[in-house]
Amino acid sequence: MTATLIDGKAIAARMRDETRAEAARLTALGWAPKLVSISVGDVAAAELYVRNQQKSAEAAGVGFEARNYPESISLEQLQGVLAGLNADPRVNGIIIQRPLPAHIPVKALQKAVHPMKDVEGMHPSSIGNIVYNDLTLGPCTAVAAVEILKTLPLKMEGLDVCVIGHSEIVGKPIAFLMMGLGATVTVCHHMTRQVAVHSRAADAVFVAVGKPGLVRGEMLKPGAALIDIGINRVDGKTVGDADFASCKDVAGWITPVPGGVGPVTVSILMKNAVLATAMQMDHYRSAFAAAV
Amino acid sequence: MTATLIDGKAIAARMRDETRAEAARLTALGWAPKLVSISVGDVAAAELYVRNQQKSAEAAGVGFEARNYPESISLEQLQGVLAGLNADPRVNGIIIQRPLPAHIPVKALQKAVHPMKDVEGMHPSSIGNIVYNDLTLGPCTAVAAVEILKTLPLKMEGLDVCVIGHSEIVGKPIAFLMMGLGATVTVCHHMTRQVAVHSRAADAVFVAVGKPGLVRGEMLKPGAALIDIGINRVDGKTVGDADFASCKDVAGWITPVPGGVGPVTVSILMKNAVLATAMQMDHYRSAFAAAV
Repeated sequence: MTATLIDGKAIAARMRDETRAEAARLTALGWAPKLVSISVGDVAAAELYVRNQQKSAEAAGVGFEARNYPESISLEQLQGVLAGLNADPRVNGIIIQRPLPAHIPVKALQKAVHPMKDVEGMHPSSIGNIVYNDLTLGPCTAVAAVEILKTLPLKMEGLDVCVIGHSEIVGKPIAFLMMGLGATVTVCHHMTRQVAVHSRAADAVFVAVGKPGLVRGEMLKPGAALIDIGINRVDGKTVGDADFASCKDVAGWITPVPGGVGPVTVSILMKNAVLATAMQMDHYRSAFAAAV
Repeated sequence: MTATLIDGKAIAARMRDETRAEAARLTALGWAPKLVSISVGDVAAAELYVRNQQKSAEAAGVGFEARNYPESISLEQLQGVLAGLNADPRVNGIIIQRPLPAHIPVKALQKAVHPMKDVEGMHPSSIGNIVYNDLTLGPCTAVAAVEILKTLPLKMEGLDVCVIGHSEIVGKPIAFLMMGLGATVTVCHHMTRQVAVHSRAADAVFVAVGKPGLVRGEMLKPGAALIDIGINRVDGKTVGDADFASCKDVAGWITPVPGGVGPVTVSILMKNAVLATAMQMDHYRSAFAAAV
């Protein structure tokens, strides 16, 4: 093994300490950050995520309320719930847990969350602000992957980066975040003729496809950084999209799965919660200060 | 010369005919499409653009009102003007002419245009919707460049594309529009180590930087499509970002400057005007139909 293993838990812990300090500052000002999690129907699939978020929120000093609505709720009723949460100054961030029942389109709910409370960074205008290099609340997984790369001793300007996977909430936002940092970015996906041609030329490879073993060592430039965002279950074990055994002998740095991008993603969610709270406080003060 | 010259004016004329038919249909339904152009202060710099847009609007059957506000107007006053236009059902699209005086930040105005009236496709949520592959109103120049490529006999899925220039309103939107079509996209810019490494591997090259002579024939793969979005004045002549003399002998297709992307961009603006009008009509009907 030549690759240095990237310790996602350590990065996440450092972020959480910063978030806790900021949460304490806001709480002292009367703006205790609070998240509301919305799940619909059978909670078993999302339960582990929600419990994990709840624990992280407690550790970061962020309030957390988990709400579960019955499977029979309509889209219009849920939009009404969100309108209420948008208007409630005691709620600073809204999380939409997936999966949702088939009659509730996830995008319709994401659009109904006020952009200032969009701690998951999923609203079209949150995504558009990344393109505009005006990052406030970014999609958590993409931001986490990029924050991990930034901990490495690599100069981002001019870095050749290959992103494998072009989903709206991971691959594309990573591409725009890296462009914003000055990297030269190529985005590959299932229609790309030869992924290896692009990945082998890259100083850093992000992979977020959901296919175990997709990236093998021979697809990497020796010494490259490999950020593995995949989460797959194989034979009862959690693995990423990289073939770890062959990649670790070629890469310069590699994230483990689990213990890489995952813990940092939850820390970014909490960081977004305090960012959102601070934005709302500033907005409230600029809108109403004159009247006080 | 081996390259086929792409006739932007002919493509623009075809689009204008489609737009005129749609404008006539909407007018017959009581929804005559109408644009309002906002310019501030000295109009000399924008005057040619505005006159050009006015002529195109007339040819497409779209109403056009050019408003000029004095240099002394404040940002807050302009935001008030936009709030009025947003609320006025007789106005279907708003164009913010640049340049603006230094005290008026262009992004603040773009954000103040209602996304349904954002015919320039500049609002963060318009940009975010492109990332989500949910294209309604896209940024005109980027959409024009991609529409031109789509007229060529090339299969977009798996096409290797190089975008040179990563501006928020041209380069980046072209990148995600092409990703949405299934292309493998690399975005290069001033921090890219060797642009030629990427451009020479590409089946199609878009260049939007604003540097005459930036792309030379030896930077292209023989037979590649070259879409030149640059507009530069050199010795009293308008030229693009490509060195036309050397590129025309290597490329398979090339857009002239002027007469390439420019005329198509104005046609896309008019197409957006009728799209916006149709969206507003549908929105109005779904919101108020029950009350009629």
